[in-house]
Amino acid sequence: MLNLSRLLSPKSVAIVGASPTPGALGNSVLQNLERHGYSGAIHLINPKRDEIGGRPCLKSIDELPEGVDAAVLAIPGPAVLPAVQALARRGVGAAIIFSAGFAEGGAEGLAAQAEVARIAAEHGMVIEGPNCLGMVNYAAGIPLTFVETPVLPLEGKPAVGIVSQSGAMAVVLGTTLMAKGLGITVSVSTGNEAASGVEDYVEHLLNDPATPAIAMIVEQFRKPARFLALAEQARQAGKTIVLLHPGTSSAARESAATHTGAMAGDWQLMKAKVERAGVVLVDSLEALGDVTELVVRSKPVRRGGTAVLTESGAFKALTLDLAERIGLDLPEMDGATAARMREAIPDFIPVSNPMDLTAQALVDPDLYRRTMEPLLVDDNFAALVFGIIQTDEATSARKFPPIIDAVKALKPEKPVIFAGLDDGAPVPAAYIDALREIGVTYFSSPDRAFRALRHLNRLAERDFASADSAPVTLDLPHGVVPEYRAKALLAPLGIPFPQGGFAATIDEARAVAATVGYPVAIKAQAAALSHKSDAGGVILNLADEAALETAWDRLYGNVAAYDADIALDGALIEGMGARGTELIVGARNDPDWGPVILVGFGGVTAELLHDVRLLPVDLTHDAILAELRSLKQGALLDGYRGSGALDIDAVATLIAALGRALQGTPAIREIDLNPVVVYPRGKGVVALDALILAE
Amino acid sequence: MLNLSRLLSPKSVAIVGASPTPGALGNSVLQNLERHGYSGAIHLINPKRDEIGGRPCLKSIDELPEGVDAAVLAIPGPAVLPAVQALARRGVGAAIIFSAGFAEGGAEGLAAQAEVARIAAEHGMVIEGPNCLGMVNYAAGIPLTFVETPVLPLEGKPAVGIVSQSGAMAVVLGTTLMAKGLGITVSVSTGNEAASGVEDYVEHLLNDPATPAIAMIVEQFRKPARFLALAEQARQAGKTIVLLHPGTSSAARESAATHTGAMAGDWQLMKAKVERAGVVLVDSLEALGDVTELVVRSKPVRRGGTAVLTESGAFKALTLDLAERIGLDLPEMDGATAARMREAIPDFIPVSNPMDLTAQALVDPDLYRRTMEPLLVDDNFAALVFGIIQTDEATSARKFPPIIDAVKALKPEKPVIFAGLDDGAPVPAAYIDALREIGVTYFSSPDRAFRALRHLNRLAERDFASADSAPVTLDLPHGVVPEYRAKALLAPLGIPFPQGGFAATIDEARAVAATVGYPVAIKAQAAALSHKSDAGGVILNLADEAALETAWDRLYGNVAAYDADIALDGALIEGMGARGTELIVGARNDPDWGPVILVGFGGVTAELLHDVRLLPVDLTHDAILAELRSLKQGALLDGYRGSGALDIDAVATLIAALGRALQGTPAIREIDLNPVVVYPRGKGVVALDALILAE
Repeated sequence: MLNLSRLLSPKSVAIVGASPTPGALGNSVLQNLERHGYSGAIHLINPKRDEIGGRPCLKSIDELPEGVDAAVLAIPGPAVLPAVQALARRGVGAAIIFSAGFAEGGAEGLAAQAEVARIAAEHGMVIEGPNCLGMVNYAAGIPLTFVETPVLPLEGKPAVGIVSQSGAMAVVLGTTLMAKGLGITVSVSTGNEAASGVEDYVEHLLNDPATPAIAMIVEQFRKPARFLALAEQARQAGKTIVLLHPGTSSAARESAATHTGAMAGDWQLMKAKVERAGVVLVDSLEALGDVTELVVRSKPVRRGGTAVLTESGAFKALTLDLAERIGLDLPEMDGATAARMREAIPDFIPVSNPMDLTAQALVDPDLYRRTMEPLLVDDNFAALVFGIIQTDEATSARKFPPIIDAVKALKPEKPVIFAGLDDGAPVPAAYIDALREIGVTYFSSPDRAFRALRHLNRLAERDFASADSAPVTLDLPHGVVPEYRAKALLAPLGIPFPQGGFAATIDEARAVAATVGYPVAIKAQAAALSHKSDAGGVILNLADEAALETAWDRLYGNVAAYDADIALDGALIEGMGARGTELIVGARNDPDWGPVILVGFGGVTAELLHDVRLLPVDLTHDAILAELRSLKQGALLDGYRGSGALDIDAVATLIAALGRALQGTPAIREIDLNPVVVYPRGKGVVALDALILAE
Repeated sequence: MLNLSRLLSPKSVAIVGASPTPGALGNSVLQNLERHGYSGAIHLINPKRDEIGGRPCLKSIDELPEGVDAAVLAIPGPAVLPAVQALARRGVGAAIIFSAGFAEGGAEGLAAQAEVARIAAEHGMVIEGPNCLGMVNYAAGIPLTFVETPVLPLEGKPAVGIVSQSGAMAVVLGTTLMAKGLGITVSVSTGNEAASGVEDYVEHLLNDPATPAIAMIVEQFRKPARFLALAEQARQAGKTIVLLHPGTSSAARESAATHTGAMAGDWQLMKAKVERAGVVLVDSLEALGDVTELVVRSKPVRRGGTAVLTESGAFKALTLDLAERIGLDLPEMDGATAARMREAIPDFIPVSNPMDLTAQALVDPDLYRRTMEPLLVDDNFAALVFGIIQTDEATSARKFPPIIDAVKALKPEKPVIFAGLDDGAPVPAAYIDALREIGVTYFSSPDRAFRALRHLNRLAERDFASADSAPVTLDLPHGVVPEYRAKALLAPLGIPFPQGGFAATIDEARAVAATVGYPVAIKAQAAALSHKSDAGGVILNLADEAALETAWDRLYGNVAAYDADIALDGALIEGMGARGTELIVGARNDPDWGPVILVGFGGVTAELLHDVRLLPVDLTHDAILAELRSLKQGALLDGYRGSGALDIDAVATLIAALGRALQGTPAIREIDLNPVVVYPRGKGVVALDALILAE
């Protein structure tokens, strides 16, 4: 674990490139420290000045006392490397490098950055950046940034840590979270991450009791495995990580590469992995702020439906539409709750969810309390959303106080969310503050409220259990494992293949075919032959021994014609199975993110629709079933409009077996079983092919 | 055309149920009129009072002078009908009915509402409601509602008309539009629409020169055809209608039915039709306000790409992702523009779109103007979005003025949109006002900005041309037209069917088969036999005359066994065609919305994915091609991953032919051609079946 305390909580600070000029970076850093009343020692370095603002200046870094905690380098790029060297000589604990033009600026910059990293490692110095905006420890009142930073003591507010590669985005998110009335413990931008990355800061914040949640903006994890381990640790500690990570589009991935100097990886793989580790992945700045607030402000979202109280029938319909679009469950009230609700409302209002109170609360303000109460005690509802028409100050004055009083009186143990229907309504800030103080998250948009809730809903629904079956270690050769050997390795795990066997000679082939029964297929086998179909190395539907004999010769001829250098080991002789629905099932072990299984429907349509799922390798049987059903064509597995139900259980069993192999055998790079034929329920599956690539 | 001027611009007003009690409906109506300084005569009716607030009271409606323009009924439901009768006797021009419990409240309410409508028709009286919140003519300062209504003179502000069935939603939208600094000409809620509906108010506003755009919230159009005609008229007059219409979910449609007393129709059909007429359909209150503002505030959105200027590389990547998700085109700058951009920016900033200016404008504020300029003159870009980091008042003070000055100097002829990246940033209102004054639409969220723009983008991309081929009138019998007659009717339009012909006897069947050539299919024919396959009335793949003869007898036997009452006309004898890709193509003529063609891929997967499009019947060939390509599996039509290109042109020709029949033959209720087999490009299509249902 990288010790970041000298950077994040420095007892003394040096500003290299201190300046008396307003707007200059070195000046802004000093202004920030003074505004926050930083109580540690501040050392200014400027060779041309004796003093700045009454503080003495040192001529050079070499004049620093030994062991200053943190230095801010407010100097041009070319001056950075010598400065880092000098800081290392003086035993400075940490350096913040604002300058750009390192890894993202070509070969020379890359080399300079590597040298900075080397020096840091050698001297145990923490480096933030280069190409960053520094950090602010709001909790301790220590800003080390040139961005004008407000003083924001925590004062018991719900608080969040910010970890962002982009400095601009850290500032943007900070502004939004502050506007939400949240505290920020520490905000860090990591820039090019020469020697410390987002993972290090996350680890630090996980150990900070003042930080219950971390909001992150990341374009590329440089240490994915470490991040996943930390995220898992966060989940178990009950700390939530909310992540915004561009890169769904190839254009965004290219953009990230040019601007961070790091190639962006496979976004879908990242998604599968971080969600498995308990991270909430969002797709906009709005959602990042909204979800983060809901996490730290309100009671935790448990598994369950959502109850909605509102004041308009049309809005009720809009909510039903949105709920269907985003998958939010709005269950009907059950008997007891419905009865209590019936008693709470006038006769002309029907009981339903969403519950349209009409404008009745304007004449009967206690209605809010009476209708909240049954919903709050009913465990079928994991959250309550108020969709209220705010209109103006006078109307707000009639609605907010009874709602606030009701929440105070009822002390809800589930999240209560307020969603103003009329964006821009001039609601007095005092009401919003009062709601926030009692743990109600306030949104000026119902869509944002429901979407934020849905994110935490999904988190609560996620099944984090691991399958308890043991990983299996396969003894693999290096490189491509030919089909017959791959099948022999995988079959004992319970992966079903066609009846058949390997034959090195035509005599053996005859014997296998006789055992299997005709018709049979023969498939050429050699490690060097990875595309056997292209080489004419697969011949199907051989009806009898005569056909087998002819085909054997033809097979050898085809492969020889295709590539004279390939010496076949022999051929697989397999029985021809019945037709069925084809799935694609494969696996790979990403060097950064680790192993993952890919499953989807076969065929052009599925490809066109990107109808695949990426599955962690340790899912339980039920979790695998849920993943399979969430394929776009997943309904086909349970039978749809006359097509019978398929053996989804057998698919899940096959995937679990593959998962055990991947967990126990890190040498696996890829496994490909395509296609896997799925038969009607109870009739199993058969993987027609098997290819393993090992390191 | 219903003359609404006595309702919307009354010279005299009566308040039935006037009240001195603050909060009472009748009191609130009077308060509103007084606050707005209404200058017409106000007649108060309250049998128990001599005066209210110094104004004399009449004991009953019968005491009203003859010919008051508008009366507001602030009285309980049961008193409404007698009051309407009395108003009619006094020649009152219009009545607003707030009370609920009419059509939405059961049989009795429905009857009362019908009686209100009858009286209105008899006396030429306009009725707004029942179950509405009245109307506000902001432009003339006349509020006829009990909702406290701010005085909001237009004063040259961009203005909008609001037409909503839901009164609550009209108020909500009004609040939001006011917060956006927009004017509202008239806001109307139509409630149960006993005698005037949203269509009437739209027609009125189309004729109001002060209303360039109409924002609507509708749960159910009661006169769809009329609305479509008005929308078409609006489009041609350059007035934009923005519509929010719940009902994508069945739950929302049920909810609308119970709360408006009207059954909601087919949402997808509504969508296809209103979009064809030029309406912008949105799916949230936020989007309704945002799109409406963009329409009236900024220059029109033409066809073309969008240019983005921003200040963060990470935000650039987020924007690329969002653009891909919503289909927003962000073209690269071409040679000349790229060169001009290169000159405008420092060397270390790469030229791209989105253009990341970094934080450079903080030290070089003229950068905004220099980078806007080439983008504004380049016709490849139809709009410019600024994604800016606002942070705080001090930062805003450095960014907004140069942007405002640049827009003023450059006088853009395309929309310029400002999107604050940091929602909640404390930006002084004066800057936002200044942007709005020069036609820049301000959003506090980039996602909302891009989504609103994309809506108008799509509108600009829509092809409103009609095919210029003539409608075709088919001479149809009533009821089900059997396949052989349907094919005979449709074939002359250019719809290809299999080779073959009708045979009433086995001799005729032999003759047809001899002409067509074996193998053939035979299909039983009778108007009463609508599910021939279920009846064993289709026999395929008859190889020769002997097989035909046996099949003929079997066919008659099957049908007789299925239903002894069906007398066959004979059978269709058709050649067996080659296999191909199957589409489903059908049409229906909705009694409310008119004719529409449904096209999609055949098969369970397509059904599962709802992969169908609803097409207007008068699309041009190119527009039909575009619709076909926008099917989820549309890429298959042009060939995908080894599957060859299909004859998409022939599909479009078939659909156009169907469209001509529907346009020229209103008696058609349904046509079903399923399946239509599509062959490789140049090889055409064949519709295997044909069923027509006529009135």
